[in-house]
Amino acid sequence: MGVTDFFDPDGIAVIGASKTPGKLGNDAMTNIQSYDGNVYPVNPSSSGSVYGYEFVESVHDVDADLALCCVPSPVVPEVLEECGEAGIGAAVIFAGGFAEVDEDGQELEDEIVRIGEEYDMTILGPNTAGYCLPDLDLYGSFVPEIRDVETGNVAFLAQSGGIGITSAFQLDREEYGLSAMFGLGNRANTGFAELIPVLDDDPQTDAIALHIEGTNDIDAVLEVCREAETPIVAYKAGSEELSDFVGSHTGAPIQARTTYEDALDGEGVVFVSSVTELIDVSRVIADTPTPAGKNVGLVTAQAGPGIVIADELNERGAVFPDLEQETQDRIDELLQGITYTENPVDTGRPLPEFGQVIDAVARDDTIDIVIVYEIYEDSLGYPVDELETLAEEVDKPIVFTVAGPKSFEDERLQMEDAGIPTFQAPERGANAVGGLIDSITDDV
Amino acid sequence: MGVTDFFDPDGIAVIGASKTPGKLGNDAMTNIQSYDGNVYPVNPSSSGSVYGYEFVESVHDVDADLALCCVPSPVVPEVLEECGEAGIGAAVIFAGGFAEVDEDGQELEDEIVRIGEEYDMTILGPNTAGYCLPDLDLYGSFVPEIRDVETGNVAFLAQSGGIGITSAFQLDREEYGLSAMFGLGNRANTGFAELIPVLDDDPQTDAIALHIEGTNDIDAVLEVCREAETPIVAYKAGSEELSDFVGSHTGAPIQARTTYEDALDGEGVVFVSSVTELIDVSRVIADTPTPAGKNVGLVTAQAGPGIVIADELNERGAVFPDLEQETQDRIDELLQGITYTENPVDTGRPLPEFGQVIDAVARDDTIDIVIVYEIYEDSLGYPVDELETLAEEVDKPIVFTVAGPKSFEDERLQMEDAGIPTFQAPERGANAVGGLIDSITDDV
Repeated sequence: MGVTDFFDPDGIAVIGASKTPGKLGNDAMTNIQSYDGNVYPVNPSSSGSVYGYEFVESVHDVDADLALCCVPSPVVPEVLEECGEAGIGAAVIFAGGFAEVDEDGQELEDEIVRIGEEYDMTILGPNTAGYCLPDLDLYGSFVPEIRDVETGNVAFLAQSGGIGITSAFQLDREEYGLSAMFGLGNRANTGFAELIPVLDDDPQTDAIALHIEGTNDIDAVLEVCREAETPIVAYKAGSEELSDFVGSHTGAPIQARTTYEDALDGEGVVFVSSVTELIDVSRVIADTPTPAGKNVGLVTAQAGPGIVIADELNERGAVFPDLEQETQDRIDELLQGITYTENPVDTGRPLPEFGQVIDAVARDDTIDIVIVYEIYEDSLGYPVDELETLAEEVDKPIVFTVAGPKSFEDERLQMEDAGIPTFQAPERGANAVGGLIDSITDDV
Repeated sequence: MGVTDFFDPDGIAVIGASKTPGKLGNDAMTNIQSYDGNVYPVNPSSSGSVYGYEFVESVHDVDADLALCCVPSPVVPEVLEECGEAGIGAAVIFAGGFAEVDEDGQELEDEIVRIGEEYDMTILGPNTAGYCLPDLDLYGSFVPEIRDVETGNVAFLAQSGGIGITSAFQLDREEYGLSAMFGLGNRANTGFAELIPVLDDDPQTDAIALHIEGTNDIDAVLEVCREAETPIVAYKAGSEELSDFVGSHTGAPIQARTTYEDALDGEGVVFVSSVTELIDVSRVIADTPTPAGKNVGLVTAQAGPGIVIADELNERGAVFPDLEQETQDRIDELLQGITYTENPVDTGRPLPEFGQVIDAVARDDTIDIVIVYEIYEDSLGYPVDELETLAEEVDKPIVFTVAGPKSFEDERLQMEDAGIPTFQAPERGANAVGGLIDSITDDV
């Protein structure tokens, strides 16, 4: 019983399940269908079946560890009490109308916290879009088409379910997935402090992304962040100027971004400043080894975007050291004096030798991180063959920043498969590498 | 004769045209095929035809205004001289190896400047990926698949052809187009000062996006920026720390970003800090009316992303004024006390009434700019019908920030057609509105 019931429930009760399309209890049933386990639509006023599952009258009639509660806020305490009696270990409460609204709502929330305590029940929400574990085909959410989101190696813990869902769909649109997404909502009794340790132990998760608005027990959150071995990337939203609006959301206390940054300085938690950066930095940290230092080798097929990347990385504290003589000789031979053969290396245009130039820079012992820029050209493509084993062999981050027509998609994904994260705009590649630089702690 | 020959050439000579796939002279022929006008592949050592166009021996044998020079740098002066003799008014020189390389290259470039002067010939480049005018199906570039890029209302003038191409492909991937893209390269005799006035007069162009590394006659550039009536958005790359690398690119002098910002302060030129922002701010400025002030009405269906947007806009100087009593009453009636009905307005979830809430806020006289956030849900969709005529009726910018599964694409594009620019990440919507705020000058 408890938080682990979210991860491997023997049975799932959908309370307030509905046959009517567009209703929350129907959307939740649509999503839960893909789960390979027992699912019980619970609704005393419905009969027959929904998506092939027979309706049951009460949660007492089912054998389930997890409940998805699709009922309005006034009914939640009663429903939750029944869940507790029926031995449910974990519940998701989608409804809003609790501590984020007013004092009555606060009382309602206090009541469900009490019920949770009485029955030792882990409660996600209230006021959440739910969660998903694509690897288990488990989509405990009412958000339509969230099942499109595939499996990956980054876990998202979002104080706002909306940010969790937004990130999940953005990952999906860009052809990535995630290991887990939890929208925390009001955090009745389950928040960052409870979920980070579980995700830290999850073999599927190589990086944990946090969206934080404000937390009640900040010390507990900081403590689990410090203790986690899995890298953490955090985005703190909700500034003091917006206190009314933020408070009305998930009942979050107003905390400055610096409160978290200062407390976790040097602890290996990387802070970012946008949702896209949260996605990009988490991906690159999940997919590549921790760099040994800030020495960046930049290889670009087009100087202009290379300058944009170098500019940005320069501001982020990257160093562009001279390449070793052996590397310089190898590049000179490959490029025969074309354009700029120092670091950054500019090949002037993608050439058949482009992959070999990347190889040379990546094998240079002074280089800790390699970032590449190339506009895709059909006749040359990306140097997929040359890169296939390179990232593994050199055991350092290689990041590819790409541009090109839609037809380049296949080869881009082949690079991803070779352990080389790809980013689709110059500043996105630069920010990802900036995140890698920020992830370096003194004890590397 | 002159710069206008880029826009409406009677005939185009492709010098160094080739039958061999992968060769620059072949790639240029592939792209120029779509042009509805006479095209002449010029190559004394080739016979027969390429893509249905008969090879000719010399540029003297053709009737053309424009030449695409696909020859290596040492041959360029000779080729250009012949173009001048043959009455060509404008030439694109793709080859690198000029002022950006060394003193010999500088001499070569001086020579082509001299030839340009002698024959009153406008030269794009050298060291450029070329240009394109999708509305005329005119793609004067060697970059494969650049023909995918469709027509739009933003013109890109990029000092680096690579940035121009990168931007063009990013616009294409996100289902937008452009009115023109020019990669300036070394700017032998054609740069910002020559092209901005022409694009300012172009009825197809509603905003001009500039990528600047450094310019030799900065006063001339500043002057045309000040005089242009079309809004200008500028991204200055190439910091002083990278002087060697920048200089090796397009021979650009090193100039601080502030040189441009300070000189154009209050002149209506908006400065941005990334390629994606250059695209997004140019789009929103091209597609929406100039706002009358900084009063932003934010309507969000999910509070979390709304907070992210409000945070960002707060930093950018946006004001979130109270809504008029009439508007508040209308929203209260629509939402019946759901969540936060002040400004920002949070509807808690997308509702059937979502479009009416946007309508109410947009018609509020205290509001100058409307920004909306909504995660797409299939059963509700986007409020396309309600928004269809709204942007035109209220004559103020309405910006939609979207998230959702891939299936939302159709309705997103319908909103674009209704004059409502859409952005696919919270910070992208916020940055676009930030650009609108920056575009407000005192004389609005």
